This record gives sequence, structure tokens and C-alpha cells, in this order.
Amino acid sequence: MKIALVQASFIEGAFGKNLTTIITHIRKAKDLGVDIVVFPELAISGGNVGDIADYDDFGESNLNAINAIASECRDIAVVVGCYIPTENTVLRPFFNAACFIAEGKMQQIVAKTVLNDSDISEESRYFEPNTDFLTCTYKNETFAIVISDDISVPVVSMEFSVNPMDQISKQSPTFAICIGAVPFDYNQREIRHTVISTNAARYEIPFLFVNMVGGHNNIVYDGGSLVANAQGEITYEMNYFKEDVYVVNLNNKQENISEFEIPNLPKIARIYDAITCGLRDYFARSGFKKAVIGLSGGIDSAVTAALMVDVLGKENVMGVLLPSEFSTSHSIKDAEDLAKNLGIEYDIVPIKTAYNTFMQMFEPRWQDLPFDVTEENLQARIRAVVLMSYSNKFKAMLVNTSNKSEAAVGYGTLYGDLCGGISALGDLYKTQVYELTHYLNRNGIRIPENTITKAPSAELRPGQKDADSLPDYDILDKLLYAHLEGKNNAEQLLAMGFDQALVNKVLKLIRLNEYKRCQAPPIIRVSTCAFGHGRRFPVVW
Amino acid sequence: MKIALVQASFIEGAFGKNLTTIITHIRKAKDLGVDIVVFPELAISGGNVGDIADYDDFGESNLNAINAIASECRDIAVVVGCYIPTENTVLRPFFNAACFIAEGKMQQIVAKTVLNDSDISEESRYFEPNTDFLTCTYKNETFAIVISDDISVPVVSMEFSVNPMDQISKQSPTFAICIGAVPFDYNQREIRHTVISTNAARYEIPFLFVNMVGGHNNIVYDGGSLVANAQGEITYEMNYFKEDVYVVNLNNKQENISEFEIPNLPKIARIYDAITCGLRDYFARSGFKKAVIGLSGGIDSAVTAALMVDVLGKENVMGVLLPSEFSTSHSIKDAEDLAKNLGIEYDIVPIKTAYNTFMQMFEPRWQDLPFDVTEENLQARIRAVVLMSYSNKFKAMLVNTSNKSEAAVGYGTLYGDLCGGISALGDLYKTQVYELTHYLNRNGIRIPENTITKAPSAELRPGQKDADSLPDYDILDKLLYAHLEGKNNAEQLLAMGFDQALVNKVLKLIRLNEYKRCQAPPIIRVSTCAFGHGRRFPVVW
Repeated sequence: MKIALVQASFIEGAFGKNLTTIITHIRKAKDLGVDIVVFPELAISGGNVGDIADYDDFGESNLNAINAIASECRDIAVVVGCYIPTENTVLRPFFNAACFIAEGKMQQIVAKTVLNDSDISEESRYFEPNTDFLTCTYKNETFAIVISDDISVPVVSMEFSVNPMDQISKQSPTFAICIGAVPFDYNQREIRHTVISTNAARYEIPFLFVNMVGGHNNIVYDGGSLVANAQGEITYEMNYFKEDVYVVNLNNKQENISEFEIPNLPKIARIYDAITCGLRDYFARSGFKKAVIGLSGGIDSAVTAALMVDVLGKENVMGVLLPSEFSTSHSIKDAEDLAKNLGIEYDIVPIKTAYNTFMQMFEPRWQDLPFDVTEENLQARIRAVVLMSYSNKFKAMLVNTSNKSEAAVGYGTLYGDLCGGISALGDLYKTQVYELTHYLNRNGIRIPENTITKAPSAELRPGQKDADSLPDYDILDKLLYAHLEGKNNAEQLLAMGFDQALVNKVLKLIRLNEYKRCQAPPIIRVSTCAFGHGRRFPVVW
Repeated sequence: MKIALVQASFIEGAFGKNLTTIITHIRKAKDLGVDIVVFPELAISGGNVGDIADYDDFGESNLNAINAIASECRDIAVVVGCYIPTENTVLRPFFNAACFIAEGKMQQIVAKTVLNDSDISEESRYFEPNTDFLTCTYKNETFAIVISDDISVPVVSMEFSVNPMDQISKQSPTFAICIGAVPFDYNQREIRHTVISTNAARYEIPFLFVNMVGGHNNIVYDGGSLVANAQGEITYEMNYFKEDVYVVNLNNKQENISEFEIPNLPKIARIYDAITCGLRDYFARSGFKKAVIGLSGGIDSAVTAALMVDVLGKENVMGVLLPSEFSTSHSIKDAEDLAKNLGIEYDIVPIKTAYNTFMQMFEPRWQDLPFDVTEENLQARIRAVVLMSYSNKFKAMLVNTSNKSEAAVGYGTLYGDLCGGISALGDLYKTQVYELTHYLNRNGIRIPENTITKAPSAELRPGQKDADSLPDYDILDKLLYAHLEGKNNAEQLLAMGFDQALVNKVLKLIRLNEYKRCQAPPIIRVSTCAFGHGRRFPVVW
């Protein structure tokens, strides 16, 4: 039995384009004498369509695509993920289905049982869970088809009582195909290896896992599809963040021997790959070819600019330096050094005249009111006006440069430095931004040394440093991680040794600043808990 | 049997405050000789907590509150909604439960069966569905407890196969208590009457329905709790948008006679009540006492200002007029007339000098590039900078003035007129804004006549009118309603008689402008499909 695993990118709602991708791969696979071609979960519609599914033609478009695929399935079989409409006696409109198509028609619909409604997933909004557990048969081989969480939840949560593979395995499948549209996060690869290995070993059959790939708004599907033998050893791992096809021959005993070694890529390299993949596809799909970035001389904007150069090429990235009267001289030099290192075009647009103009406009009402956060924000907002004007005039998307530490505690100006069409670093803590800097500089200095070594500052008043109002990022980031990703509450954080006053202050800041985060740009997600759609908090509570 | 229905406001995560509310009502009810006191769905935690529930102390806080309530339950019983933790053999961490507490302890936990994951609801993210159907007994009376969608879905979707009341009714309850946290929308009242009547008539028992009340971020719970007799007639309707308590005596046959007439409040009056309730509570919870509004002389800002005067009082609303060189003379006069009619303070801050300053800053790069959308947006963004400076300096929340028609087609400037801490009109089509205007003027002119009669214009270039680039709002709004609320796709819209070119243009604009809406302020929801959290669309697709 020869099985082709097609790890490809499928675009939300682009039924025509997705169908072309599928049919092209089916025809190629035929030429290679493949028996079954496997596509990812929800390949027909794209994985992250949201309420596009509310419209009548959505179900129809899925079924039409299935028919078109069926007409290609002579002498070859296909497993492909799609939305299958349910009867209206149930609450949800669709099944999240794997369709097994052979001999010119749909042979079996296998629906997902374990629906994911955590973090960025909300499958119960659209999908009815499966209750039938059946194997499929092709060319006298009986095999299992399962969908992502159906095999991962029982491994990750050992006490979980529903296990679809336990049911299906009663019918003695000889191998299993698992399709997924599983987003990247920096722990996902290890989990995925464990899940596939554990299942293969437990049921003593080979497991073939095919994942979606590509950037889709805030989500990056990372690929990394896997093959495991009946001993639970990983025998093949497909590319990450790239389209890839692999043909497994299950009859070839040689292939079942594990000579595979997991390439040991450092975590930060995978984060770099995820963010650049996400940005590349976001720009491509939004039709923007150019980016504009405000360069402060600080580390966040420097790293963002370097990432965008890698994504779009240096000729498509424009830097704007926006010094104010509080900008230190090294800031301008550091930003210029960066632009020169990266080879990008840059303008210097001092904001002092605009600042003075606004202050004169306010004078009749402000009179002698003291300098406060208003004037700090004013500078940040003038910069945003300039950057958005560049964005409009030159059809360049403004890339937001905020990081996760700042977003958490509200260190940033709404409609100021929080602006942008997409956030590159919004799911990285400040300490991770430094890590990424070193990665970007691994083959030579791109981000200037002084940008890395100087104390972070917003430079919105004389002599300001982040450390004046925030704790050291080393401590802050550990606390934020324990609270946001780790879900530790105040009591638990104290037990972990964090200072009481600090815990109270930081948790309060997180709570009070939801109003800024709820208006922030989409953030490329790389952690298990990114701000944005995956973390639902009331603005006032 | 005397039953007190307590329609109160319960704040997200404010366990201490909510418990005090509950205990105060229990003690008052005792004094009145009440047998059972009923509180709304999720009263203990507040109804719309989102991922606050992810933290360990959340389940504990619910259980602690139950214990505190139990210790009050001597000679009185309580039905109250809360989160009850599940075992970890299931996927979701909680039940959405109605606790029946009597004789100092929990007597029974009734969990919700029909979980709502549509629109703004995402119950499957947190809740496991119920599978046990049991009645409760107190003082020799057997009765049913059910939760909101458990009785509404089987009525609204007649073919739906799960009906908890069918199961419970096998045990012959003599009346039913239904608790809800059902948000307002302008069709909700009629649906609610039908649902309660239909259930009471079908099972031939009285139905008592208690709803949550109050503004909670974008959601407004409207109260309007109901009593129906065993013939399915509504015998009592509680206040809308106000806390209210009603004691039903089920033994008093007089009370079961329906002399009730539904007060016939026009739809626009209910919308007015919902928006002002939402704004009032949003301001109160966010700690803001003042509002600032940019007054353009147009209808949206005029209506927003009038609403805010009704919510906060005229002394707490500040208008800022921000004329540009493209503002017509009547705009300034209309805005001044409005401010005078409303009795609010206002400043005039012309933006021309700031506009010229920015254009000079851009000159080295722009040179002779023609006037385009950049310069239009620049004006809107300068206004936002001024308004946000006022907001910061005077601790006044900027109230956004965009309407739903504009938000749909992207007619507005990101970081310009789309700014604000909350959107008052974001769920009203332009034609509804006119309706609301007439309602606001019902007892005398508040919004100037000329603001109502003139053609809408953004006034960002000479002689600009909305109608230059958009169809008449009469037609546009009908099309938008059919597509957004009605879920009609392009083909269906054509069949309804809309022009093909118009349908294509509008649907494309809706799709392309998600990037603006995803960074918009929270919108007070009054329809069945508001932009924001309840409508999930990818930004690029």
C-alpha cells in the first residue's frame, strides 16, 4: 500500500484554489502509483474560516468539491478533510469530517469526536461530535481514519474518558491515518511526536499524520507531518513551514526501520520560522508588498525590521525615524545603524513641530496644566499619524512592534505605538525578543550592539527607562509566563516565590489594560496563550 | 408556595459583591415569608466571564459562595446559577448549573443541557452538557429547574431532537423555574414571550423565568423576567433594564388569571433603553465619569452626544468641534446648535494648522504626489489625536460615533473616527440612527433639524457626500441587514432583487474591511449580529 501524505496550504474560503491544489496532487500521485492520497483536516475550505460557514453556499461548496474530487478517484483513493452538513435535528450545522473517497464516490465520512474549544479553537460553534466508530477498507486493507484531537486529547489528558481509537481498534485496522490542522506553538512539536508515537505503540500499527501548513491570519500551521511504525518509532518527519509531499510504502519493511533522528533545531529558530511564515502569508493574502516600520533605535523595532527584511526583501521595507525632544542622540544613531545594516531605505521625520502645533491648539483649554501621560501619549500618537500616512501613501503595511510583556501590562499608547496591520512580536516576551535578536545576529551583526546593550526606554519624557515603572524584564517575564501560559493565580504565584506587591501590581495592570489589547492588531501566535482571539477576557470586570 | 424572582445585575468575577447581593435578597425574602428565592443563570460569578474561569480559584470561589448561601438557607430555599467544576474525565471544566439549596445544604445540581455556541455565546469552551434529568422537591412540591436555552432551542428550532423538559416532565413537576442570562436584542422580547408561553402550555404547568439584567461590556442583559400560568398565558412581566423583584404566590388562584397586557413599547424605545443601560454600566465599571465626543455637525455624533447626556448628565459630557478646511460652515453651526440644545460644554479646535504641519513634515518625501486617501485619513487621525488628548487630560472616555453601515463597508478611518473606548451606535444601521434621532427629539428638538435633513458627508475633501461612493442608506441598510443578520449570500441577495453590481461591491467591501473592524472599540450589541466578538471572520481570506 503506497500512501502519499500531502502537507499543503489551503486558503480560507478559497474553494476553487484549494480544489486545484488537491486535484493537482491527486494526478501527480497517480503517476507515482500511489494507492491513497491524504490531505489535511479541513483542506477543502481552509482551516480557520470562522463564520464564513454561516452562509448557505459554504456547505454546498464543500460538497461540490467532494464531487469534483470523487470524479478524479479512479484507481486511486483520497482522504481529505472538509465540512459536512448535519441534519437539522442537532444543534451544530456541520461535522468536521475526513472523507474517504474511492472508486468515483464517497465511501465513508469519518467525523471528529473530540472537539477542541480551548484557546484559539471553537469547534463546538460549528461542529457536532461524532458518535460512530468505523474503519475503512481499500484494496483489502482495513485502516483507521482519525482527526487531530481524537488521538491527542487521550494522550495529553490521560484521565479523559472518550478515546475514539479504542473503539476503532476493535475492528483491527492494520494502519491509521490521522489528519490535522494543528497550529504551531513552541511546544507543539514535542507533543506531536509523543502523541503519534504513543498511539502507534499502543495499537501496534503504523500511524501516518498529515498536518496543514502556512500562515493564516494570526495562526501559523507548521506542517511537520509524521510517520510512525508499529513499534511507535518516528520513521519520518516532513518539513516545517513548507509545503511537502512524502510517499510511504507500508509494504516496504525497510521503510519501517527507524533510522530517523529528530533534527535538533533550537526553539528560537522555530519561533523565527513561525513568525516569518505567518508574516509572509499575511502580506501575500492581504495584497501588500511593502512594509513600513517606525524605527526608535530600540530592540523591538529593530527586530521587527530585520524580520520584515527576511520576509519581503530589503527593497520592500521602509524605516521611519521619528525623534522627539526626549529622544537621546544614540537612538537616532542606533536606528540609522540598523537601517544601514539591513540596507533599507529610511526617512527621518522629527515630530517636534507637530508636537508644538498640537500643544498650541490645546493651549486655550490646557493653559498651565502640568505635563502628564497626555503629552507622553501625544508623541506616540503623532508618530502613528506619520507612519499611517506613509502606509497610505506608499501602500505599505505598518508593522506593529509591541511585545507581549508590554501588551500584558499596558506599556504602550493606544492609537500610538499599538498601531499596525499585523503584530510581529506580540506573542514574544521581551526576554524572547532579545533571544530572537541573537538568532538574527548569528551570522553577523544586523541589529546594532548598542540597541541590544542599552536599557529599554520609551523616551517619552526626559531620562525615562522601562525599569522606572516596570520590574526587570527577567522577573516580569517569568511572572507573566506563569500567569498567562501557566494559568497560576495570585496565591499560586506567591507560593512560587514572586513578591506579593509585584504580583498584585502586575495582575492589576493585566486586568486594567484589556481595553488596549482589545483594539490591538492581529498577533502572530507562537505560544500556547497569545493575546487576541485565544484569550477571552472582559474589558471591564 | 411563594416564590421570589430576583432580577438583578451580577458583575463578572466580583464574587464578594455578587454574594452580598444574593444574601441581601434572601434575607428580605425571608421577611416576606417566601419559600423559594430564584436568582439568574451564573449569578454567582457574573454571566460573561470568559477565560477568568481558567484560573483555579474560579471554581473554588463559586463553591465557597454556594456554601455561604447554604448557611443562609434555613426555612427558605434558593435556586441560583453558577459554575460547578466537573471531573477531569471529561473535556470541559464546568457545568453551567442551577443549584437548588435548602435546609442548609446543596440539594441538587441541575446542569444545562443545550449549550449555546452561536453569536456571542461560547458555552462549550467552558461547559460540559448535562445528561441527567431530575425534578427537585421542596415542601412536598415537585418542580422542574431548567436553564435558558434548554427550553428555548426546542421551541425556536422545532426539529431539534434534544428536549430536557420532555424528560423532566415524566416526573410530573407542578411548576417550572427557568433561570437565564439572556442578552437583549431587538427581537428577544417576542421570542421570550413565545418560549415561556409555549412551554407552560405544552406541559400545563406555571413557568417562572428569571433573567439577568444590566450592561456587561458589549452585552446588555435586559431583564424582562416572566411568569406564565398553566394555560400558557403570560401573567406578569418584570421591568426591563432595571433591577426588580417579584413574589409569585402559586397557591393564589387570582394571580394565575391573566389580566396582563404586554406594554407596547416601540422597538426604537427598547433600543434606546438597551444602549443607555449598556453605556451607563460600562462607564460605571471602567471608572470613567466623563465622556468626550467629537462633534462634526453630523447625525452620528449628535445622537451619541444626546445619549451620553442621558447617561452621564450634561455636566459630564464635553464636545469638541474639529473643523478642517473642507468643513462646511453649516457643520460648525449645527454642532454648536447641538451643544447648546444639550447644554454641554464645547471647544472649537480647528485642525488646519496641524494638517499643514504634517504636510510640511511629509514634503521632502511626498513632494508633488497628488491628494488621495492619505490626506483624507490624515484629517480624521489629527482629530483622533486631539480627542484622545482631551480624553487623557480630563479623564473622559472618548465615545466612538461610528454606525454599523459605515463599519460594514469600511467607511471610516482606522485610528481616526474609529477610535473610542466604547461604541454607542456601532450596532445600528444609519437608517436606525435616524429613527433614534426622532425618538430623542420626541419631546422637543435636541438634535438640530439641519443635522437631520442634510445629506451625510465625511467632509474630508471638497463637496464630498456619502452618496458619492455609497448607495443610498435606505438600500444599503436593507442589503446589509439581509446579508449580516439574514445570512443571505450573494445568490440569495440577487434573488431578493438587489442589483448584482451593488451586491458584489458591498460584499467585497465587507470582506476587505475586516482589518478595520478587528481593531474597533467594543460595540453595545442590540441586534442578532453585531460586529465584534459575535461575528468571527478572518481578516484576510
